[in-house]
Amino acid sequence: MEHYFQPTTYHAAIGSHQPVLHVGDGDSIVTTTVDAHGFGQVGKSVTNGPNPQTGPFYVEAAQPGDTLQVTLDSISPNRDHGFTRQAIALNVLDPGHPRHDLDPGLASWCIDLASSTSTIDIPGSQMGPMTVNLRPMLGCFGVAPDTGQSISCATSGQHGGNMDYNGFVTGVKVYFPVFVEGALLHIGDGHAWQGDGEILGTGIEVSMNVKITVQLHKGKKINWPRGENDQYIFTVGNARPLDQAMQHATSEMLHWLQSDFQIDERGAHFLLGTCVEYDLGNFFDPAYTMVCKLPKRVLPNA
Amino acid sequence: MEHYFQPTTYHAAIGSHQPVLHVGDGDSIVTTTVDAHGFGQVGKSVTNGPNPQTGPFYVEAAQPGDTLQVTLDSISPNRDHGFTRQAIALNVLDPGHPRHDLDPGLASWCIDLASSTSTIDIPGSQMGPMTVNLRPMLGCFGVAPDTGQSISCATSGQHGGNMDYNGFVTGVKVYFPVFVEGALLHIGDGHAWQGDGEILGTGIEVSMNVKITVQLHKGKKINWPRGENDQYIFTVGNARPLDQAMQHATSEMLHWLQSDFQIDERGAHFLLGTCVEYDLGNFFDPAYTMVCKLPKRVLPNA
Amino acid sequence: MEHYFQPTTYHAAIGSHQPVLHVGDGDSIVTTTVDAHGFGQVGKSVTNGPNPQTGPFYVEAAQPGDTLQVTLDSISPNRDHGFTRQAIALNVLDPGHPRHDLDPGLASWCIDLASSTSTIDIPGSQMGPMTVNLRPMLGCFGVAPDTGQSISCATSGQHGGNMDYNGFVTGVKVYFPVFVEGALLHIGDGHAWQGDGEILGTGIEVSMNVKITVQLHKGKKINWPRGENDQYIFTVGNARPLDQAMQHATSEMLHWLQSDFQIDERGAHFLLGTCVEYDLGNFFDPAYTMVCKLPKRVLPNA
Amino acid sequence: MEHYFQPTTYHAAIGSHQPVLHVGDGDSIVTTTVDAHGFGQVGKSVTNGPNPQTGPFYVEAAQPGDTLQVTLDSISPNRDHGFTRQAIALNVLDPGHPRHDLDPGLASWCIDLASSTSTIDIPGSQMGPMTVNLRPMLGCFGVAPDTGQSISCATSGQHGGNMDYNGFVTGVKVYFPVFVEGALLHIGDGHAWQGDGEILGTGIEVSMNVKITVQLHKGKKINWPRGENDQYIFTVGNARPLDQAMQHATSEMLHWLQSDFQIDERGAHFLLGTCVEYDLGNFFDPAYTMVCKLPKRVLPNA
Repeated sequence: MEHYFQPTTYHAAIGSHQPVLHVGDGDSIVTTTVDAHGFGQVGKSVTNGPNPQTGPFYVEAAQPGDTLQVTLDSISPNRDHGFTRQAIALNVLDPGHPRHDLDPGLASWCIDLASSTSTIDIPGSQMGPMTVNLRPMLGCFGVAPDTGQSISCATSGQHGGNMDYNGFVTGVKVYFPVFVEGALLHIGDGHAWQGDGEILGTGIEVSMNVKITVQLHKGKKINWPRGENDQYIFTVGNARPLDQAMQHATSEMLHWLQSDFQIDERGAHFLLGTCVEYDLGNFFDPAYTMVCKLPKRVLPNA
Repeated sequence: MEHYFQPTTYHAAIGSHQPVLHVGDGDSIVTTTVDAHGFGQVGKSVTNGPNPQTGPFYVEAAQPGDTLQVTLDSISPNRDHGFTRQAIALNVLDPGHPRHDLDPGLASWCIDLASSTSTIDIPGSQMGPMTVNLRPMLGCFGVAPDTGQSISCATSGQHGGNMDYNGFVTGVKVYFPVFVEGALLHIGDGHAWQGDGEILGTGIEVSMNVKITVQLHKGKKINWPRGENDQYIFTVGNARPLDQAMQHATSEMLHWLQSDFQIDERGAHFLLGTCVEYDLGNFFDPAYTMVCKLPKRVLPNA
Repeated sequence: MEHYFQPTTYHAAIGSHQPVLHVGDGDSIVTTTVDAHGFGQVGKSVTNGPNPQTGPFYVEAAQPGDTLQVTLDSISPNRDHGFTRQAIALNVLDPGHPRHDLDPGLASWCIDLASSTSTIDIPGSQMGPMTVNLRPMLGCFGVAPDTGQSISCATSGQHGGNMDYNGFVTGVKVYFPVFVEGALLHIGDGHAWQGDGEILGTGIEVSMNVKITVQLHKGKKINWPRGENDQYIFTVGNARPLDQAMQHATSEMLHWLQSDFQIDERGAHFLLGTCVEYDLGNFFDPAYTMVCKLPKRVLPNA
Repeated sequence: MEHYFQPTTYHAAIGSHQPVLHVGDGDSIVTTTVDAHGFGQVGKSVTNGPNPQTGPFYVEAAQPGDTLQVTLDSISPNRDHGFTRQAIALNVLDPGHPRHDLDPGLASWCIDLASSTSTIDIPGSQMGPMTVNLRPMLGCFGVAPDTGQSISCATSGQHGGNMDYNGFVTGVKVYFPVFVEGALLHIGDGHAWQGDGEILGTGIEVSMNVKITVQLHKGKKINWPRGENDQYIFTVGNARPLDQAMQHATSEMLHWLQSDFQIDERGAHFLLGTCVEYDLGNFFDPAYTMVCKLPKRVLPNA
């Protein structure tokens, strides 16, 4: 079943808020998200950040201890401009790295959906115009955490949240642990493009048309967000410092290999240690994000 | 000029040791390296680790404040077997991640140079045989540091050293800051293959035939190792935690963009922040390694 | 005015929950707290952890941007036993530090209020009985955070929370930034004693009789919890890793010296850099805690 | 036996340099050290930093695997002035913490040995004069590391080095693992005073008259520097980030309790977890230093 949902309220923290829609296992949702600062399709302020979320969506029959699969069927900018910060964030550079003439404000990109590109003339620079091919993604999305928490959309955790990983693009399947009845899925913070690490502190922030499909895996328990695309399975660790995000992501991948792919412990260590690849999600938010990837072609029975 | 050098002594720390050969700007060196544990081409112990180095090579006219370019002309295993550890290192996993039946010892891979593959039957696992395509690299190489230091080949720093980055393959140009007269280049620690992060604590450790070419950039001062391949320029930050390695690599790339590519500060931040990609070198050694990459195609006048 | 409040509900996250009591500026509250696992004065389970909070207390006239002063008038165990974990937490030790025969469960201490001591015969050890003098403290307390967050009592932040600092004892004044109307003060997680760093993962966890007095500092904005005792003023940084907690605490102290004590920037740096002392709060929770202290005797006009 | 040694050469890295004196087990050495920048008793530049070391002293019969005890019999400034930096180092503060008018240079303190105080009029500040009581200590000292390493006196490790811990004062016994024949003890970098963390990047840097006594513990193997004073035994972890320094120090203390004090594993965990105290050594150098302390009064048979 396909639900069309037009949001009128938003949340700057992911928690057990009043659901806006109940959906069933296997249903799809077609909706919109506003940008990180709360500006919508017509470029007007609709709500306050950080990263206001559409939802939450209540998934029927979802219980703590289940896994919620969210397929990102389509993520597409729904307006012709997006915003980025202009200077690399201070935490990304050596303490004392010289800064002379940087503008801390937002710059505006022109988004051309026909050519699927985004272009800017960098403010205050002689560099000339710059163009990137669109690679639309969701920066912040996830499910309600447990014990009554409501976690700021500035940060991330086991429930997902503001992971700002540029691999969360159309076609990807994402898996979240379910902590509360109904899972309570939130989505938002679309980026038309984002470099590794989101080191400017933003992607190209834009409102989006989004279609997702939810699917329940009853009784399947996971600890951290997982995902897969055509070529890889991957796990997502969210923490500061990066060292801890590495540990979360790598440990979760070992769990996955041993539980779902029936690989014995020695095989799982050897296979992962040999073939692992890592992506840097974000290195800006309160919790950083590292992604542990394994090519599907090296999986047994893949 | 091409020098053929057969090593008889090795160093487990990179420092101002007696040079084994003097070479000129533009010269090539054809030599061999033993594996990380000091085993050479015939599979016998020749010296002690960690990561015994061939050299040092004295580069005529190299002075502190110069940059030494090292082109990796050829890196090729010179025997039919290599070693890896079998279990993911403890620092890579959550404290308390369960470990039941892991073998801390070394496993032996069969290396087939004809097919350019390496194969193993994972010890103690039901997984069956596993094959990887060779991607030979140098794990540990660099130049003598300043102030009389002699830095263990277990770790890395501004002088290079045990970076264990799987991007240091044939064809890559590497740049080191020169700290002492003659630069005193050391090379060693060949890996026939290595996953991201070297999370087993090893690549496939093997002795190598190596050809390199050195070139001096007089009066050009850099702070951290840099490199380039066909598609990218990159900088290398070595430190623990990963957060600090990130800072070193990203700061060095900004320096590079502003000094060599004549990009103004605003342009450098914007370009790098938008287009940066990161690779994880090692997440095992005392100093971790992060690599900050920028595609050559986005460089002005590239 | 003095309020006597007997709690019947508790919260495992600090947020904008329904206030249980409204109090005025200058009022005192006499109440009780249950222990970290939700066991109360009679040693029975009353609620669920982590660190269930009494409150929240609504402080009349408190507005975002104010500072709430909480004087810890009295913290006193109200039962004759408390619990600790028995093994040093894994994150505190080198990865791979040997562990042979450790009991992960809880051990029970006998608390003798007459002699103000706590005694245990360490389970499974030949060491014999061990006695400590009581030093009762609050492990977790704070005010509701902003943007609709409800933050788990397992962790801490700018709002306070699970700081587990053994300096929060009777007589101390604590200052919190106010983020929401009424401040919404929560208190809980009493420890009869706690070592530096809470490296067992617990203090001696016990229910408490608590008396506090609240006082508003209108229009005074602070960023992190602060405190003072007879000898020191101090600031509290909560983050992981410790390096970031250090940065938060030290930066906040510089702000304090410059704003309240009218010390110029050069003087503030010099005074703090020369005379600073640091205490380790906790090195166990998701956010670690470092405390930056300055002796009152070195303050100008002190 | 007491040796009087007047140094003429110094080392900016701790390694297997030519010994300047051979001493026996139990011997004392009376000597001098220059300050961190190489200025000696008469305030003239004698050598180059960082932290030039007097020595190395060869201890007869010391072998790898032994422990070298160094008693700090006397540490006393031998001139009437010392230097400090004036601004808190950038790594100690939040990225972006405002800095307006700080002087990165050195300020000069007047040292009065008669009153055992040091006084300064803070440059550029209205704060007025400031006085501290002397608490002379050694910032950088240690033994030659293994595998041919020569480690910069800017940093520290298992061999000791630039720990900058203000607990290394007169009367303290320090223990180092011996890595090479003769141990090769180096000493230097005296501070007339130092705040916790050395967050200015310096103590009050001064040349010193030093008397030490060395004693060998044959066949006693330790992993990290240890020490004791009247009230505490302590262990020293040197690493970045602080989290890792914590792990090294705490693990080493557990080893100590189990091996020397014959406490069983459960008792060691319980005793240390309950009674531990931590001091912050330095939070400025490439490797940070944390000190894990246990009061002697809680030790069995103490």
